[in-house]
Amino acid sequence: MLDDANLAFETILELRASSVEDLLRRLLDGRLQPGEISRPDRLLAAMRHGVLNGGKRLRPFLVLESAAVFDADADAAMRVAAALECVHCYSLIHDDLPAMDNDDLRRGQPTVHRAFDEATAILAGDSLLTLAFDIIADEATGLDADRRCALVVALARASGIGGMAGGQTLDIDAQRSPPGEPGIIALQAMKTGALIRFACEAGAILAGAAPAERERMAEFGSAIGLAFQLADDLLDITADAKSLGKATGKDKAAGKATLVALHGEDWARLQLAGLVTQAQELLDIYGERGAMLKAAASFVAARRK
Amino acid sequence: MLDDANLAFETILELRASSVEDLLRRLLDGRLQPGEISRPDRLLAAMRHGVLNGGKRLRPFLVLESAAVFDADADAAMRVAAALECVHCYSLIHDDLPAMDNDDLRRGQPTVHRAFDEATAILAGDSLLTLAFDIIADEATGLDADRRCALVVALARASGIGGMAGGQTLDIDAQRSPPGEPGIIALQAMKTGALIRFACEAGAILAGAAPAERERMAEFGSAIGLAFQLADDLLDITADAKSLGKATGKDKAAGKATLVALHGEDWARLQLAGLVTQAQELLDIYGERGAMLKAAASFVAARRK
Repeated sequence: MLDDANLAFETILELRASSVEDLLRRLLDGRLQPGEISRPDRLLAAMRHGVLNGGKRLRPFLVLESAAVFDADADAAMRVAAALECVHCYSLIHDDLPAMDNDDLRRGQPTVHRAFDEATAILAGDSLLTLAFDIIADEATGLDADRRCALVVALARASGIGGMAGGQTLDIDAQRSPPGEPGIIALQAMKTGALIRFACEAGAILAGAAPAERERMAEFGSAIGLAFQLADDLLDITADAKSLGKATGKDKAAGKATLVALHGEDWARLQLAGLVTQAQELLDIYGERGAMLKAAASFVAARRK
Repeated sequence: MLDDANLAFETILELRASSVEDLLRRLLDGRLQPGEISRPDRLLAAMRHGVLNGGKRLRPFLVLESAAVFDADADAAMRVAAALECVHCYSLIHDDLPAMDNDDLRRGQPTVHRAFDEATAILAGDSLLTLAFDIIADEATGLDADRRCALVVALARASGIGGMAGGQTLDIDAQRSPPGEPGIIALQAMKTGALIRFACEAGAILAGAAPAERERMAEFGSAIGLAFQLADDLLDITADAKSLGKATGKDKAAGKATLVALHGEDWARLQLAGLVTQAQELLDIYGERGAMLKAAASFVAARRK
């Protein structure tokens, strides 16, 4: 039954992913925007390699569905979703670099610095991050400028030193000296949580909803961000490498501090179920409109890869 | 006489630099902005190392003085100036990385990846770039949101694949296969020209000036961007290492294609003088208001380091 619901959900997730990819493809073609001088082929190819890679597009999905809850403009939401995916993909390109996680493969394909070179990978990441803010702030987003600015600021804070990039620093530090529980929670809230929270909050900002609505959606995003990370840590110890498509047992082998390592699998499963319930209850107030995001919360916790 | 004028100009440049640094210091302190979770010490220290490094702050100066031409709000201009300097400094941090220019020193200090480590340098650059858009889009800039969005878009296009980052790719390519004259001009217009052009255009955007004014200021910026690069290439062959504070003759040793290498020193000096005149004539229409930017054009061409 859960598997059936997840199956239906995954079909919708794939549909949305395909729409987001259409837009990403258009944004990453060779056409110049006013103010641009040229788009060098090799850099553009590296950006496309890093973005058009068959990801699940979970974060864009959350933007689109949170926008639907508030009846926000769907085209504007699609641009914000694409911008967020540019930020997510830039972070993967930079995280994969030799100086960071030194990964050769991502989704079975060579990472950007392997397919191109390190310098190009650094610049492709930089350019995707830059493009994200261009996409949102552009008049083409079709939102009034106050909302475009609010989205730029919220995305910047979710991505920068106070969010994702800061979380990546903490993650590197953690490999030298493993943090305790509060440290793990802060690290995860920043490294993976902040963008997921932004994705859910974005719908409320897009619609110009009241601050309390925005706060509720941010709280929903924080809860499923935590669930996402717990599920990830659980998968690392329970899934077999084949179904996951990447090596498992990496966290334990690396002596990585996770909540699962700290409290055990049983505790983590209970915690995960609790987070999903808590997240879903936050959306009760939206009735049927919240159904898709509630399904997303279940999906995040139940995912097999 | 030219030296006297330059001396006075340099005093004013230093005054402006000190104001911009005050703001950069405030923007890079430990205080959290709404939406930020924490600012990890080590990353913040690396960002400060990369920004508070005693630069001339020429680009911020151009923002402030172009804003003054149009009587734009000075506090708003100061924030845009600081944001632009964050972008400039991020680009220096990433350009210095081992995968790019592999420089150990900048202004006599260890580069960020030397003072910290490569991963931290990559993330410090990423976070400065992100912060730049936050600074401009924030309500604290005190501009109406349409102008904040226009500045975000213009800065993104000057910095990303169609501007500075694209130019850096072309520069790396040029080391493998030296470009001809059109290639050199495009490379320089993107790598160093785009941010200087943005700096000059920013004043018109800040003030909500007519498109023709914005276009004129962009043209002025392009001209002094070219002059800046010509002066740089000339310095590389004529200055002694001591007065420049860095190694000279690097371009020739690297077989680097420059317009000076292509056409010789005499041609370059004539060209430089022509660019300064052309730039200054564009500002005649502003009378006394354009005086400081005219002095900047002379300074850029006459600089000794």
